[in-house]
Amino acid sequence: MTERRAIVLLSGGIDSATTLAIAKRQGFAVTALSVDYGQRHRIELLAAKALAEKMGCRRHVNVPIDLRQIGGSALTDSIDVPKDHYRPDDKEIPITYVPARNTIFLSIALGLAEVENARDIFIGANALDYSGYPDCRPAFIETFETLANVATKAGVEGDAIRIQAPLLTMTKAEIIRLGAELGIDFALTTSCYDPTTDGLACGHCDSCTIRRSGFISAGVVDPTCYVTEKARSPR
Amino acid sequence: MTERRAIVLLSGGIDSATTLAIAKRQGFAVTALSVDYGQRHRIELLAAKALAEKMGCRRHVNVPIDLRQIGGSALTDSIDVPKDHYRPDDKEIPITYVPARNTIFLSIALGLAEVENARDIFIGANALDYSGYPDCRPAFIETFETLANVATKAGVEGDAIRIQAPLLTMTKAEIIRLGAELGIDFALTTSCYDPTTDGLACGHCDSCTIRRSGFISAGVVDPTCYVTEKARSPR
Repeated sequence: MTERRAIVLLSGGIDSATTLAIAKRQGFAVTALSVDYGQRHRIELLAAKALAEKMGCRRHVNVPIDLRQIGGSALTDSIDVPKDHYRPDDKEIPITYVPARNTIFLSIALGLAEVENARDIFIGANALDYSGYPDCRPAFIETFETLANVATKAGVEGDAIRIQAPLLTMTKAEIIRLGAELGIDFALTTSCYDPTTDGLACGHCDSCTIRRSGFISAGVVDPTCYVTEKARSPR
Repeated sequence: MTERRAIVLLSGGIDSATTLAIAKRQGFAVTALSVDYGQRHRIELLAAKALAEKMGCRRHVNVPIDLRQIGGSALTDSIDVPKDHYRPDDKEIPITYVPARNTIFLSIALGLAEVENARDIFIGANALDYSGYPDCRPAFIETFETLANVATKAGVEGDAIRIQAPLLTMTKAEIIRLGAELGIDFALTTSCYDPTTDGLACGHCDSCTIRRSGFISAGVVDPTCYVTEKARSPR
């Protein structure tokens, strides 16, 4: 039987780790793809490497792209990452948005899929927690899939490329419960946009806020090392 | 009157230089975007810089991305660039094809357009000379435009993003004649996939072959310095 290959975008966070576990459960031989885009939370690249190894990826590819040249985001520029600011019903695009990030990441994944002869690309995009990001919506994923099948030889020849975003409409608590069921070691994952040099999570950026409340709602122990006792006991 | 901004993908070749001249003629304040993707013909980045300066771009952004990590192309890998091999009616995808390159380049341009508040992205893609490249066809450009308007805040809010590919159905000779009319200094452009360390064009790769026959058909003097006398006098 021929090996079915997939590319999984792996950032090192909860969502991409859970997406990787789903791809593995579907029987794919997975090449994990991480993008080193000049993010200030570079510790996530180490997390991705550890997850790819532990979760049995056939290969882990790390592509450097310097998005600091484009700018426009607190994640790549010397702009302060907002703290204690997250509101779930906020429809504004946050300053941590990286312009066209998912478009760029999926494009790189598409190139890798062509080289690896993979037909499935997995991304942990989620429409609920990041409702302000245009490139985390179902319409974006569907349109990128259409593009992938116009842009590549395989697609043009009718051997369809699929963009799988299995977490798209799940809440963070649902994702964490599913990840726990699939045996993910969440201690290997990292979410913080602004960690200390020692790798401790700040506990107060949007990403930490979503992660912490997600673990609480899911009833799963959060193994994250936050920087202060205060942050460690949010209730 | 508000400045109308555009992003122009500028590789340093004839097509992108002509595309830049068209964008300038349309009255745009242009930010030129070059991508340093680990190409072996890195001299084109110097050509792009010289063209952006001479042709009055407001800014020239150079984004490094290491596509060698993906591989699969003679332009980034240590695979020999084919010589004396080009046949215009060949529908096979050549080994110099870089997987998903135009998708990746347009994605980066889209991110820059968001930051610069530009609504027009120009690319010198051409369907005739590179008929084997899926991402040089009109359907690809149209689908990417659809994606751009789903992926970005501006697009979602109805302030449409346009992908302009003005050379799409032109022959190389037509492009060269138009470029000459628009006053492009072709001596600043470079096309060779495999130049010498001194920057001389090989004269025999697909890109040199297309360039040379294009100048001959257009009846325009080719100012290129080719590596041998033989190459310099192809007739």
